[in-house]
Formats: sequence, structure tokens, C-alpha cells
Amino acid sequence: MTTTNPLLREADVDFLLYEVLEVERLCALPAFAEHGRDTFDLFIREARRLARDVLFPAYRAMDEAPPKLEEGSVRVHAKMRDIYPQLVALGLIAATRPADVGGQQMPLCVATFANAYLMAGNLSAFGYLGLTTGAGHLIEAFGDPALKELFLPALYEGRWTGTMALTEPHAGSSLADVSTVATPSEDGTYRIRGAKIFISGGDHDLTENIVHMTLARVEGAPAGIKGVSLFAVPKFRLERGALVDNDVAVAGAIHKIGWRGLPSLAMAYGDRGDCRGWLVGKEHRGISYMFQMMNEARLMVGLNGVATASVAYLESLDYARTRPQGRAAAARDPLSPQVPIIEHADVRRMLLRQKAIVEGGLTLIARAAMFADVAAHGADAEERARAQHLLDLLTPVAKSFPAEKGFESNALALQIHGGYGYSSEYLVEAWLRDQKLNSIHEGTTGIQSLDLLGRKVVAAQGLPLRLFRDEVEASCVRAEEAGVDRAWSEALRIAADRIAEATMTLGARGLSGDVDGMLLHSADYLEMFSIVVIAWAWMLQARAASGRDTDFHRGKMAAAQYWITTELPRVAHLAKLCVDGEDSYARVPPDAF
Amino acid sequence: MTTTNPLLREADVDFLLYEVLEVERLCALPAFAEHGRDTFDLFIREARRLARDVLFPAYRAMDEAPPKLEEGSVRVHAKMRDIYPQLVALGLIAATRPADVGGQQMPLCVATFANAYLMAGNLSAFGYLGLTTGAGHLIEAFGDPALKELFLPALYEGRWTGTMALTEPHAGSSLADVSTVATPSEDGTYRIRGAKIFISGGDHDLTENIVHMTLARVEGAPAGIKGVSLFAVPKFRLERGALVDNDVAVAGAIHKIGWRGLPSLAMAYGDRGDCRGWLVGKEHRGISYMFQMMNEARLMVGLNGVATASVAYLESLDYARTRPQGRAAAARDPLSPQVPIIEHADVRRMLLRQKAIVEGGLTLIARAAMFADVAAHGADAEERARAQHLLDLLTPVAKSFPAEKGFESNALALQIHGGYGYSSEYLVEAWLRDQKLNSIHEGTTGIQSLDLLGRKVVAAQGLPLRLFRDEVEASCVRAEEAGVDRAWSEALRIAADRIAEATMTLGARGLSGDVDGMLLHSADYLEMFSIVVIAWAWMLQARAASGRDTDFHRGKMAAAQYWITTELPRVAHLAKLCVDGEDSYARVPPDAF
Repeated sequence: MTTTNPLLREADVDFLLYEVLEVERLCALPAFAEHGRDTFDLFIREARRLARDVLFPAYRAMDEAPPKLEEGSVRVHAKMRDIYPQLVALGLIAATRPADVGGQQMPLCVATFANAYLMAGNLSAFGYLGLTTGAGHLIEAFGDPALKELFLPALYEGRWTGTMALTEPHAGSSLADVSTVATPSEDGTYRIRGAKIFISGGDHDLTENIVHMTLARVEGAPAGIKGVSLFAVPKFRLERGALVDNDVAVAGAIHKIGWRGLPSLAMAYGDRGDCRGWLVGKEHRGISYMFQMMNEARLMVGLNGVATASVAYLESLDYARTRPQGRAAAARDPLSPQVPIIEHADVRRMLLRQKAIVEGGLTLIARAAMFADVAAHGADAEERARAQHLLDLLTPVAKSFPAEKGFESNALALQIHGGYGYSSEYLVEAWLRDQKLNSIHEGTTGIQSLDLLGRKVVAAQGLPLRLFRDEVEASCVRAEEAGVDRAWSEALRIAADRIAEATMTLGARGLSGDVDGMLLHSADYLEMFSIVVIAWAWMLQARAASGRDTDFHRGKMAAAQYWITTELPRVAHLAKLCVDGEDSYARVPPDAF
Repeated sequence: MTTTNPLLREADVDFLLYEVLEVERLCALPAFAEHGRDTFDLFIREARRLARDVLFPAYRAMDEAPPKLEEGSVRVHAKMRDIYPQLVALGLIAATRPADVGGQQMPLCVATFANAYLMAGNLSAFGYLGLTTGAGHLIEAFGDPALKELFLPALYEGRWTGTMALTEPHAGSSLADVSTVATPSEDGTYRIRGAKIFISGGDHDLTENIVHMTLARVEGAPAGIKGVSLFAVPKFRLERGALVDNDVAVAGAIHKIGWRGLPSLAMAYGDRGDCRGWLVGKEHRGISYMFQMMNEARLMVGLNGVATASVAYLESLDYARTRPQGRAAAARDPLSPQVPIIEHADVRRMLLRQKAIVEGGLTLIARAAMFADVAAHGADAEERARAQHLLDLLTPVAKSFPAEKGFESNALALQIHGGYGYSSEYLVEAWLRDQKLNSIHEGTTGIQSLDLLGRKVVAAQGLPLRLFRDEVEASCVRAEEAGVDRAWSEALRIAADRIAEATMTLGARGLSGDVDGMLLHSADYLEMFSIVVIAWAWMLQARAASGRDTDFHRGKMAAAQYWITTELPRVAHLAKLCVDGEDSYARVPPDAF
């Protein structure tokens, strides 16, 4: 019922950027030399203002009245038509891109906070931009000059929007089974024919054109992921200076349970035989290109999760401080006034758990984004490679932790509201719906767990994991120097060691040929790993908060303590499940469920 | 998309009733002497038929078009008007009540399964009946003969329905703060004035009248719960043979996110000064009466949770068996056909976890209901008291476990459906919404945790907990005799011992005056206790399934193994949190969040 939700808090943003991450260090790199705290703050402030004043007030209306599909075209909410030009005017789409393509060379780490405000204010509204950034970045990275000229300015300036058109109805997560067909044509383009599903922003009336980054298989290509190519397929193609229909039709709308301001569509390519696609990069390399952009896309999904949990956390915090109900357990005088429910221990538990998830998740994503900044712009190849390894390793956690624990966090925000939380008169239920998508899109949590255990921790002979262990150690040492309880750092070290041991055992199992046995508990492995990563995120914050005598810093220390004492001890059991290979679901026959 | 969801499976119902619980033992008691497997089966079969053929097919339509509030009156979905008389015809409302008030003296344990089918088919539709049973039972138990004559036949025959009108806008869970006023009038009735909120079924057009079981405070009553009385307040009162308006008005409708076939209303009593209530039992005893009926009501909520998780589990199981996607990790030939997703380890994990929650929860509730049957009708006072203690102890777990873990289970069912699960084209999202209410109504999970630790385990010098320990031991011995792995029974014994130890420590803390310290980790205590109770429920099933060479029994053994090896080991850490009194959320100041 409040309209004063801050979405995120300035104090937290400043603390994380300047005291925990010390982001100004990035300005020593040539790519960011023009920047400093003043430009960072200005950039974030403008996004915050728009998020609070424009996006958030439109959220409820957009959730209640999703885009309409009429005669094959999607009409978005009227408020979205008002919002879109303002979003574009922030310069967010190309903010992190180089100056020579119209960008601001803003560190991704800083853009993360600006984006987080906008996502927390209105996930769907931001979605149009995020998708366009992703599409543009693919073309910037892998397209030839002609392709860039054709599409890039329009995308980065927000005159056109972009989509990611990967999923097909029969294949879902299995991109090896993409069957959309691309037939080379004499003019260098390809004729595209096929069907896609769950295409976010696949049609709308916000811009004059939409560019679908589409996976398809060139006729005669090898089977599997090695035969999949990437195409830019516009809704309208330019012919003699005019935009003509490119035969990409809306085949139907998905009635999503959240993100209801952003349409999700089934698309039909080439039903009339007149759909042209422009090859991005080389044939058969589409999956490889997608993989190279995947970290960024997955960090964005993780940030969706954090932002959605953040706005709900702050809503429930406000409710808990202002809603009187009941009395302390020890003071049952029925004539005494009721107390705000934040006085009840279990409500405080639910709040502190949310805080630990939200602020721990935000720290992780910002830290990962900073690794991305260094991976792209670091001073030397070694520094860049190191950062890239850490980014690769942390990405599946940064993507899945906010989705999974964010969902729990959103449910706690609802629970704190009691019966009111169960009604659409309050907003907490809407954020719970929004959140659920994040465990599904851009690789389900199950896929993240396979990526982490089957690929990331065993990459480069385990180097990324050793680098992470070094990061953990460094954070523990700095925290101890700042006066953080050594019991905390010791607990974190032990947990990190347990991961290393479990990984050695599982890696050896895989090398011996038992891949199924290695991956059987990938979900438990991901959970264990995530607990430790978030404990590390809290150690980074505890170092910066330690010994400082304000409520803000006391809150940080309490959340750090909560995570380290409540969650870290679970690592031992999870490691045991992974290593023992507990086999209940491995051996139960499908007909025995 | 399927319409063939079985809701629950016959094989499981038969197994639990006749092999795990051996429910026919109850027929040795005089109250159930007329019954046997034939009457039990017939009763359940009729409910199952109606649930599958009538209730479930109407579920989606009722979810999509909730009751309408028009000019102060609620109109339910047309399908509900068709369903209601058929539900009444089953004889469910008074099924468990004595023959002399029109009941069938059916054991609650047996009725549990009939109810579960109906709840799984259409939670809201069953709600009208469940509420009416509750209201009738209150009047049967505590009303004087005149009151019974006035209301009981109409309720038990389903000609009128009942509601529970406890919650008030300013008080929520804090019943001590009920402020609806009852003023004695010369004819023996009371004038009622006040406001209630979240009244399920508070108005509708299914029956000619509705009886609101209403908590109110007689003028001049003591403050707090000791001054709250219970009244039957009908929508229409009988005057000279005619039903006249009793000044109970609908003040507004809550837009619930689930249970959308059952209206939830704000009610205004006596705005015109003409609302009459009939005192139930004695003045100032209302809370005590409610408490005496609470076990039954809370078992019903737990069963709501199990049923809602059951239908979703079976839906996701069907989807997992029929949806092809991807290939085995070890067999990546892209030309091989895709496999059903049930072949993927992580999907099997999500299915087995659901199975463990659903069937473990169902066993618990049925076992608790059987204790209720013995508590009411046992052969002697000692047997009845023993069963009552166990029922009292298990009730907070039976209420909250299906709500909390059922929500997780419902989320897994959605996750298995991937992107489709995130759409309202499939039903899994609706059950997820339905489930969330169960952690809130009839005492939030937080309140259940305080009930368990602050009241139940310390009652009668710890006797209930010792009795439970005896039950655990007996189940372990029988399981071992049946050939169940002794490692399982040993793990269960150790976990039960840990609970006993933690309870001793916490109880002593409370006795020493540190009530806040005792209750600080009530949530962790409830979770720990629930893990052990469900492990016991699986031990009961493992005993009956052990050594039997069918897929059905192998599935039971796999789920038992899963719960005992995956969940039981968590008890040690949870006990430590409770005993250590980890103090992060105890000492964080409200302004530090």
C-alpha cells in the first residue's frame, strides 16, 4: 500500500560500491579513466530517480493489464509507452559499451546498481532495454562491419529493440535440438523458416522495428550444437530505404504468471517463405557466440532476482515496523498496547534472512560484474585471464542463488504481511510471481548446477576454483585485520576447503568415466557452493562494516553473523551427499514414483 | 493440460490405510464397530469419484472467475452451484459425527482420505464443507440443547453453511485483542457489533443461510483472551418461522491470490444495531472452546497442503514421463532421440523430493487423525489420554510441514514444467498460489512453532514427547523386524534423542525465566522436529514396504531412503542453533535492518 518503497537503499549502494568493492580502483584502467565517483553517482542517481518516480508507480497497473495480442500485433500498456523513451534517454542500453559505438564506457559493476533500481521498480519495463543491450552486444562482438552498420546504431540508440530467440517448442533447454532452418540466398542473406517460443518482447508497439537474435541451422549443417548458427532477423527489413515486413509473425501469446508487462510470445518465421536473416559471424558458431555472452546475460537474471527480492524485503520491513500486533512472549498484559511485529523474534528472523539473501546476492553480482570489467579491460593479459576465470566460476551461482533463495525471500516478505500478503491489494504477491521465472529462463537451476560442477570447477585443471580459494583467503585476512571475529573467517576457510576436497573427489570420479556419478548431486553441489560464495560476500561486507558504531553497520554485522552461523555449517552435510553419492533418486525406476 | 490427474493414487491410499496404519484396528472400538473395510472403501470411492469427475474439471474455471460481490451479496461460480449439492450428498459434513446427530461415525482417519481427494480436486469447493463441519462441531460440542436444535441439523445437513469469524483488522493473529462487542439482551441473545476480516465463505448464494461462529467480547468482560466469548451469529435469524436479515453485512472482498473459488470477506456486524448472536457455551470461554477444536481444524489445513502438493506432484510426474528433452550426460550423440526428462537425475531428484513431502505428509496427517479417533473413542481413559497427548504434540507439525514444504514441493512441480510451468496455460502455477495460504491461516507457521516449543513439548512434564519417542522406538523395532536397514532406524533414534536433549535444555532455559531465549529459535526447532516426524512417517511406510518386489514398494523405499539420508542429518545443526541460541536476529536493533 506504500508508494515510498526505496527499491534499494542509497546507503547500501554507496557502501557496496565505495567501501566493499572499492570500485574507484577501476578508474586506474584506461577504459574507465574518464570516470570517477562523480560520474558513477550521477549515472546511478538518474536511474534511481526514474525507477522511483516513474517505473515503480506504473508497476501495479502493468501487472494487472498485460500487453494485448490483437490481429497478430502486440499492444503494450499505455504507461509503457510513456516510460520507454525516458528509459532510453538514460543511455542505459549502451552504457557499458565503448565510446566508438555510442557507449559511455561505464563499468558493468556501476551499471549493475543503476539496473537494479530499475528492475526493482519495474522488472518488465526494464526488460525491453536489457534484451536490446544483449542483442546489440552480440552484433557488436561478432558481426561484420556491414551488419553493425545495419543494426547497431538503431539498437544502441533504442530506436529498435532486440530479442533473444533461442527456445523452440520441442526442444526447450536442449539447444542441440534447434531445428529452425536457414537457407542461403544469393544476396548473402538466409531464408529463415521455423518456430520459436517464450520470446520476451517478441512483438510490441514501442519502436518501429525489432531485431530477433535467432538460432537456426543452415541447411546441411552438422547435427547438434556444432551446427547451430546465429542470425539477426528483423521484424521489418530495410529495402530501398523503407521498412518492409520480414515475415516474422506472432503465433501466440504465453499467459505468464509474472513479468506481466513484457509479452512472451510464440513466433513463426517464414510462413510465407519471405523471412530473411543476416548471419552473425560465421556459420555453425552460434552456440559459441551465445556462450561468450552468457555470463553477462546470466548476471542480469541474477540481478533480476536480487532486485525483486530487494523491493519485497523493504516492503515487508516497512510493514513490520508499522503494523502493531501481539505482545512480547514475556509480557502478556492484555491491556498493554500491541507492539510492532518487528519486535517478534520470528519476524526478525524472516527479515534478517531476507537481508542476508538480498544484500549478499547484490554483493556477489556486483563483485562478479567487477570481474567482468577487469576481464574486458584489465591492465594485462594475466589480470584479465584471472578475472575471466573467476567470472566464469561465479556466474552459475550469481544466476541461480538469487532465483532460488530470492524466491524463498519473496515468500518470507509475503508471510510477514500475513493474510494481507495473500491478497492482490498488496504488492508482495506480485513480486513472488515475478521471481519464479528466474529459476527457469536463461538456463534452469538444474542447468546451472551442471554448468558449475560439470564444466566450471573442473576447467583449466581446477585453476578457477583455486583462484576463488585465494579470493576467500584474502577476504578472511583483510576481515581479521579489520577486527572481524576469527571464528567467522575460520568457518569460511573450512567450508572452502570442504568444497575443494569434494571437488577433487567428484572430478576424479568423472575422469574415471563415471560422469553420472560425478553429477548426481549437482543440485547439492550448487547449493553448497552458493552458501560459501554468499558467506564470502558477507565477509567482504563485514570487513568494511566491522567496528563501526552505527545501526547501518550493526545490521551488516548481524546479517553476516546470521549467514555464517546458520548457513555455513550446512556445507559439511551437502559435501557428504555429493561425495557419498546418496543414490535414492539415481536408482529408483521411473515407474516407481 | 491433462485432465486425467488422479489427485491421489488408489494404491497409495490403500497402502497407507490398510498396511501402514492398519486402520481396521479401529473397528474393535465400539464407536466404529459398524464399520469395516467395505464401508471405508465405499465412502472413499464416492468421494474420489466426485473429486475426479466433478470437482477437478471445474477447478480451472473457478480459479479464473472468482465469486462476484454485487450490491453487498456474493455470487459464486455457476459450477459451484452445481457442485455443492453433490458434495452435500456425500454426507461428508457430519461423516465423523455420532449417529445421534445425523453422522456416520466414520473414523477421522478414513475421512481424511476422502477429504484429501476432494481438496486435491478443488480446494475452494471443499472449503464450504470443511468450514461447515467446523462450525457444526463447535455447536455440537459446546452448545446447549436449544442452540443445537436451532442450528445443528441445518449445518450438518448442509442446508446452511458455517464460517469461522475470529480475525479482526487491527488484531490479526492476536486473538487477545478481539474487540467485537456483545451486549446481553433480555431475550437471552446478545447484540453484536464489530468488524471481522478474512472470513472465508462469509457470504455466498449456495444456501439460504450462513452461521458465523464469531468471537466477541461481552461488555465488561476481562481484557485479553480470558474475556472472549463465542457466538453463533446467523446471516438470517428465525423469527416466527421466517428468516429475517440479522444485520451482518459484507463490507468488502479480499482479492486472494489462490483458493479463488471461495470468497474471503470483510464483515460488518450490527451497523444498524440489529445483529443478534447466540452465546455458545459460557461467557468468556470462547478461546478455550476454539482451542479444543483447533487440532481438527489444523489437521484440515495440513491436509489442504498435502492435497495441493499431491495433485501438483502427480501432474509434474506425468509431464516428466512424457516430455522429451535432451539426452543423458554420458550419451551426447545429437542424432539420438531426446529422452523423457524423467531420465535426468535432477528431475528425478525434484520428483522424489515431492514424493517424500507429499506421501510423508499424508502419512503424518492420517496417523494424527487416527490418534484423534482413539482420543475420542479409545477403549479406556489411559488409551484416550495417550492418544490425545500425541495428537496435541503432532498437530503443529501436521499443520505447518505441508504448508512450508508443500510450497517448496509445488514450486518443484512448476520447475519441472520449465517455461510452460510459468504460464497459466498449465495448472501447476495455480496450485502454487493455493498452497501459500496454508502457512498463514489457522495460525501462521510462526505461531505453530511457538505452540510446539512453548506449549506442546513442555506440557505434562514432557510426557507427550516421551510418548512420541516410544512411538518412534516401536516403529524402528517393527521396521527392523521387517528387514529395514538398521542404519535407518539408528539414524532416526539418534535424531529423536537430539530433540529430547535440545528440549531439556530449552525447557530449563524457560523455567529459569529466560522465555525469550527458550523461544528464540522456535522456527528451527519446528523444522528440526518436522524432519524427525516425517522420517518417522517414512519409517512406518518402510516397514510395510520392505522386501516387497514391486515398483510401488521400491518407490516407497527410495523415498524413505531419500528423507532419512538427506534430511535427517540436518537435525544436528538445527538442534545446535536452538541450544546455542545463535543471537543475530535477537540483538539486531529494529533500525539496523
